[in-house]
Amino acid sequence: MTTSSLTLDEIYALAHEALLNAGANAEHADAVADVVTRAERDGSHSHGLFRIPGYVASLRSGKVKGDADPTLSKRSPVVLHCDGDLGYAPLAHRRSLTALAEAAKENGLATLSLTRTHHFAALWPETETLGQYGLVAMACVSYMPSVAPYGASQALYGTNPFSFAWPRAGGTPLVFDMATASMAMGDVQIAARDGHKVPPGTGLNADGAPTTDPKEIIKGVLLPFGGYKGSHIAMMIELLAGPLVGETASYASKSRDSGDGGPPQGGEFILAMNPDMLSGADWQAESEAFLARLDALEGVRLPAERRYANRQNTGPREINAELLAKIRATLSPG
Amino acid sequence: MTTSSLTLDEIYALAHEALLNAGANAEHADAVADVVTRAERDGSHSHGLFRIPGYVASLRSGKVKGDADPTLSKRSPVVLHCDGDLGYAPLAHRRSLTALAEAAKENGLATLSLTRTHHFAALWPETETLGQYGLVAMACVSYMPSVAPYGASQALYGTNPFSFAWPRAGGTPLVFDMATASMAMGDVQIAARDGHKVPPGTGLNADGAPTTDPKEIIKGVLLPFGGYKGSHIAMMIELLAGPLVGETASYASKSRDSGDGGPPQGGEFILAMNPDMLSGADWQAESEAFLARLDALEGVRLPAERRYANRQNTGPREINAELLAKIRATLSPG
Repeated sequence: MTTSSLTLDEIYALAHEALLNAGANAEHADAVADVVTRAERDGSHSHGLFRIPGYVASLRSGKVKGDADPTLSKRSPVVLHCDGDLGYAPLAHRRSLTALAEAAKENGLATLSLTRTHHFAALWPETETLGQYGLVAMACVSYMPSVAPYGASQALYGTNPFSFAWPRAGGTPLVFDMATASMAMGDVQIAARDGHKVPPGTGLNADGAPTTDPKEIIKGVLLPFGGYKGSHIAMMIELLAGPLVGETASYASKSRDSGDGGPPQGGEFILAMNPDMLSGADWQAESEAFLARLDALEGVRLPAERRYANRQNTGPREINAELLAKIRATLSPG
Repeated sequence: MTTSSLTLDEIYALAHEALLNAGANAEHADAVADVVTRAERDGSHSHGLFRIPGYVASLRSGKVKGDADPTLSKRSPVVLHCDGDLGYAPLAHRRSLTALAEAAKENGLATLSLTRTHHFAALWPETETLGQYGLVAMACVSYMPSVAPYGASQALYGTNPFSFAWPRAGGTPLVFDMATASMAMGDVQIAARDGHKVPPGTGLNADGAPTTDPKEIIKGVLLPFGGYKGSHIAMMIELLAGPLVGETASYASKSRDSGDGGPPQGGEFILAMNPDMLSGADWQAESEAFLARLDALEGVRLPAERRYANRQNTGPREINAELLAKIRATLSPG
């Protein structure tokens, strides 16, 4: 694989220019380019520049509005709603996460319902931000049906990621962010290309039979992680990020999507809780003692540890040259 | 297996008498016997009369207070706390779930932190109750370390069940309630007795190596469901039901437990959300359309369907005769 070295500033500048060029206004382009740059900084390549062609495609097609003007409103002191105005989610987050944090700090907990938004990033940028405010956070979105509920052989659930953040004493929060699908479809495609098998439980073939052959799964469906229990979690996310926040489940989101290669319109559920108010005790001493025990176990790595280690490196990043060429091609006139 | 037929009234009466006899006051005995009877009614035998010997043991030992007086307080309009006063959880629930539901209805969401309580029942009684109020609910407890975090070979997590309820139009709520351990230790013991293998990923032997031999797992540890992703959920539950609510993680709960056979002291995290307020849309039409699609898939059974079907049967239940003899023996003087 040929790569080129780009500094984090160059990554940001390229993303920003591509988004502006595709029709995003400066505020919108900045919010998305920032999230893309943070992903590359942390080594989360699948949420970095890799997403720019999709971001560009949906701005170009007009499905996503380049001048979206997300509006925050309060349905109660603890129920916040942000209408994304059909823009990308990072701008909606920028206009609502601080208000969510303030509501949770003051009242003990608060929720943010996002609707009419296009989410194409990881979830940790929002949960980590809330964790840095000293809050416990959860977030989930439902995304494009490609996962069969446990027992079935037809897709109904999205890959439906879920993220959780827990604030830590004087450091970055403990954060996990995971799809509830057994594996990302991209990883199945890589296994197929490289001739590797995938673990049992990853997916079904076109006839609905279990298989460890990734080529067969590509023609069939993915399964949720962890059998029927993971399937329950995936179902819960459909309900939380869809009907609960005033949006639709992923099958309905897909049915109105144009298929332009960018993310469909959907919702996001975000919850923030203030442990100082809920616990009434020294919660941080308890959680730090617990996490120290967990971290001390042989074979255990705390979630996000790898991302946080990558973050220490302020130097350039190696970016796939083919991807760079593809992004730069979007910049040329016509 | 020899069984005896008992009506639901007889099941309640036996549980109530055994609890009174062991030192519970009438209110405490009624709250616990009611939850035990609902479990038998629904066919959840492992949370029915099967638990009475454990309930009795901890009342007898004095670890659990038979005259516990749980106290509800509000830390904010949406943060409720119930100090269980070292009694069994059902009495604390009886004194706090209605207030939690009212707070969630009025403000959009609310949480209940339970501390100094002994939880020995399923979680669905509390989430289903909140679902019947028209609320979306989550609940979790951490219970007795017997599960090794993913990658490790020593137990640190409890079996850590999680329950979710979603209100349905004119019917019983959609509810799931599941341990985040791969399998209950009781089921591993049954497999060992019957000479069956257990699925890969269930547990490790005493040397920390994966095995499908249940006898080896009994000497070793259980694993979380679903590999590292299920392990993340189990970790989250340790934090929510422990430090967040003002209690301890399960390893610390165990370290102060007397080992009398009953449940250790611990916490519970309960969240209730009002979909009418969060969604601002016709959430029920969306969720019913989604659930109809899910239910129509071949091979899919909605969670709690079996329990709700059992519930239609108002006739007597078959109870293990050995268990009945054991419970009745606790009633005889000295």
